[in-house]
Amino acid sequence: MVYVTKRLTFSASHRLHNPKFSDEWNKEVFDKCNNPNGHGHNYVLEVTIAGEPNPDTGYVIDLKILKKIVENIIIDKVDHKHFNTDVDFMINIIPSVENIAIAFWKELEDKIPNGKLYKIKIWETENSYVEYFGN
Amino acid sequence: MVYVTKRLTFSASHRLHNPKFSDEWNKEVFDKCNNPNGHGHNYVLEVTIAGEPNPDTGYVIDLKILKKIVENIIIDKVDHKHFNTDVDFMINIIPSVENIAIAFWKELEDKIPNGKLYKIKIWETENSYVEYFGN
Amino acid sequence: MVYVTKRLTFSASHRLHNPKFSDEWNKEVFDKCNNPNGHGHNYVLEVTIAGEPNPDTGYVIDLKILKKIVENIIIDKVDHKHFNTDVDFMINIIPSVENIAIAFWKELEDKIPNGKLYKIKIWETENSYVEYFGN
Amino acid sequence: MVYVTKRLTFSASHRLHNPKFSDEWNKEVFDKCNNPNGHGHNYVLEVTIAGEPNPDTGYVIDLKILKKIVENIIIDKVDHKHFNTDVDFMINIIPSVENIAIAFWKELEDKIPNGKLYKIKIWETENSYVEYFGN
Amino acid sequence: MVYVTKRLTFSASHRLHNPKFSDEWNKEVFDKCNNPNGHGHNYVLEVTIAGEPNPDTGYVIDLKILKKIVENIIIDKVDHKHFNTDVDFMINIIPSVENIAIAFWKELEDKIPNGKLYKIKIWETENSYVEYFGN
Amino acid sequence: MVYVTKRLTFSASHRLHNPKFSDEWNKEVFDKCNNPNGHGHNYVLEVTIAGEPNPDTGYVIDLKILKKIVENIIIDKVDHKHFNTDVDFMINIIPSVENIAIAFWKELEDKIPNGKLYKIKIWETENSYVEYFGN
Repeated sequence: MVYVTKRLTFSASHRLHNPKFSDEWNKEVFDKCNNPNGHGHNYVLEVTIAGEPNPDTGYVIDLKILKKIVENIIIDKVDHKHFNTDVDFMINIIPSVENIAIAFWKELEDKIPNGKLYKIKIWETENSYVEYFGN
Repeated sequence: MVYVTKRLTFSASHRLHNPKFSDEWNKEVFDKCNNPNGHGHNYVLEVTIAGEPNPDTGYVIDLKILKKIVENIIIDKVDHKHFNTDVDFMINIIPSVENIAIAFWKELEDKIPNGKLYKIKIWETENSYVEYFGN
Repeated sequence: MVYVTKRLTFSASHRLHNPKFSDEWNKEVFDKCNNPNGHGHNYVLEVTIAGEPNPDTGYVIDLKILKKIVENIIIDKVDHKHFNTDVDFMINIIPSVENIAIAFWKELEDKIPNGKLYKIKIWETENSYVEYFGN
Repeated sequence: MVYVTKRLTFSASHRLHNPKFSDEWNKEVFDKCNNPNGHGHNYVLEVTIAGEPNPDTGYVIDLKILKKIVENIIIDKVDHKHFNTDVDFMINIIPSVENIAIAFWKELEDKIPNGKLYKIKIWETENSYVEYFGN
Repeated sequence: MVYVTKRLTFSASHRLHNPKFSDEWNKEVFDKCNNPNGHGHNYVLEVTIAGEPNPDTGYVIDLKILKKIVENIIIDKVDHKHFNTDVDFMINIIPSVENIAIAFWKELEDKIPNGKLYKIKIWETENSYVEYFGN
Repeated sequence: MVYVTKRLTFSASHRLHNPKFSDEWNKEVFDKCNNPNGHGHNYVLEVTIAGEPNPDTGYVIDLKILKKIVENIIIDKVDHKHFNTDVDFMINIIPSVENIAIAFWKELEDKIPNGKLYKIKIWETENSYVEYFGN
């Protein structure tokens, strides 16, 4: 088993806000991240696929193909967008980076033609990131 | 003359849109950057001061002091904010990274207690940055 | 289960020296790292917490809170310090980066209010790092 | 158990080509990577060793020793070389980064004097890497 | 005047060899870089344009346009290629990174629609780079 | 004229302290950097040489030779050392990074066999650096 990873970037806005709670609760809990007009990040996404290298190609999965899949299914929908308003698969989900990682997993899980999705890693800033393995 | 630089980061949203022109013009010119709900970046700001080291301290400027000045005058006003709506000194300015650099220069220029402001450099993504030397 | 990581940095000195052995032994084994006056590093610390995102916040743990905890318990005690003489929880421990990671784990293990401490990773230079999972 | 990692770099050429198949197949499958005169990369290699720190030294393995081993067994044979023609242990192997990682594992596996080889990680570009754990 | 920079990467092979001199001379002077089958790098190219921001857009030059120009004129010709054999504008030029920078300047100099080409910077490895300002 | 830069790293300790002044003055001015037992950094040094590429080699200066010169004259004297006590050319100089850059310039200025020393740049942390051009 070899694990291959493609790294991609996108720029998006988000606002952390839970509409079930009061504005005061949201401001206290989410602090700066609750700014009404939102704020944004250059997110770095790493998608890891686990599998055996194909003996004919030496590839677990052709990374050019993996890149196109992730661009079609994820990047095109989130790059230069606002997570709270513009991304269909994030509707009614608080766009914490934990929830973004889980949502990306669900979008990608059954779209990988060779090998299996092993990990979603997302850097939100240069000093914080999350990892999700599907359960 | 020695040039000392402090690097700081902030996360903000912006939308490139010129209200003097039609929505079609804006969409064609600014493309993805014109998304109505905005998008965001982890900006990296480098502030460079030129001066002679003080013989008593070896410092051109104490970088802890420079950091506090930049945090007070810039970072606190832009971090986790939306450039188009939340930043007083950017009102009526298209928040391209070029214009952000020029605006930061104006805010900082006469606030440096030792040495002189020499350069503002801003990375908007890991693949693009601007530099401004005050004229 | 989602794994969230906060990255922090600190600058410290250390000297690798085992007082149970002769100076010759120490010089041969630790070489440059045995320099009597010590030497130093910009250490990069990554603290990883594993847990389920809270449905109200989307957070495994609020990274602002995790950052404050790590600053209080670790960074304030080691930043701009000498590991061999200035850090109470490293007394009588050879400050190899392996031992530093184990010591940080012990300090942090029962101080995490949400989720569980999963990993301590420390970069000593840009070309070497250690990881410790608690056993 | 602590995991220690040494990071090293090397620059090499390769061409992805499977001589069992036609030139057309190779061109379609490997695309740009099939360029007849090859192309190259600055590969980044991370070698991870797992073990208990030695109580006398605090080391799982002296990283200066690990570095020399990897330089002798791997780097000296691949740095500034062409994988398809110059590297004895890659003869008849398609030099995909997956296969390079597996080949490096085989070369290093029984050469580690302290601890056990745990992982080979290779970055081929700043946006793609593989990891191999030996099976 | 504001200076805007776009960063792009490409992977290529080269061999340092001067056919005017003997093989011995080439081996002594270029050492590992003279390997007959070549070796390669992930080059990082930074293209800097100097100009006044356009008042309508805030741009010195639209970086999406600059990126396409550099891709068409440079990247498509050198990415996944061998400098000594595959790149028309490098014929009969020793592909040292100094000469590559000068050659890129000549290709790009009169193709910039807004602002003026100010600097070509090329990283050959993470530890070495050159800068060329056109004279 | 082409500018070529070699990047090297070293790890050292220092203490900012001016013996002409009282301990109170030093503690107030230098704060954490005045810690009596010192602290340390992974310094990153960039040495830039300006010159014309030699037509026979394409080199301004062979970077392997530049690297050896900087290692002999600088790195071997400061790596894994304490600036205040172990470095002959820093005796009686407050080891601020500004003063380190000026001292390195003096050591290197007349030792460059091809081209001229153009710039010394030193990163003290990932968030601060100085540049010195010799006057």
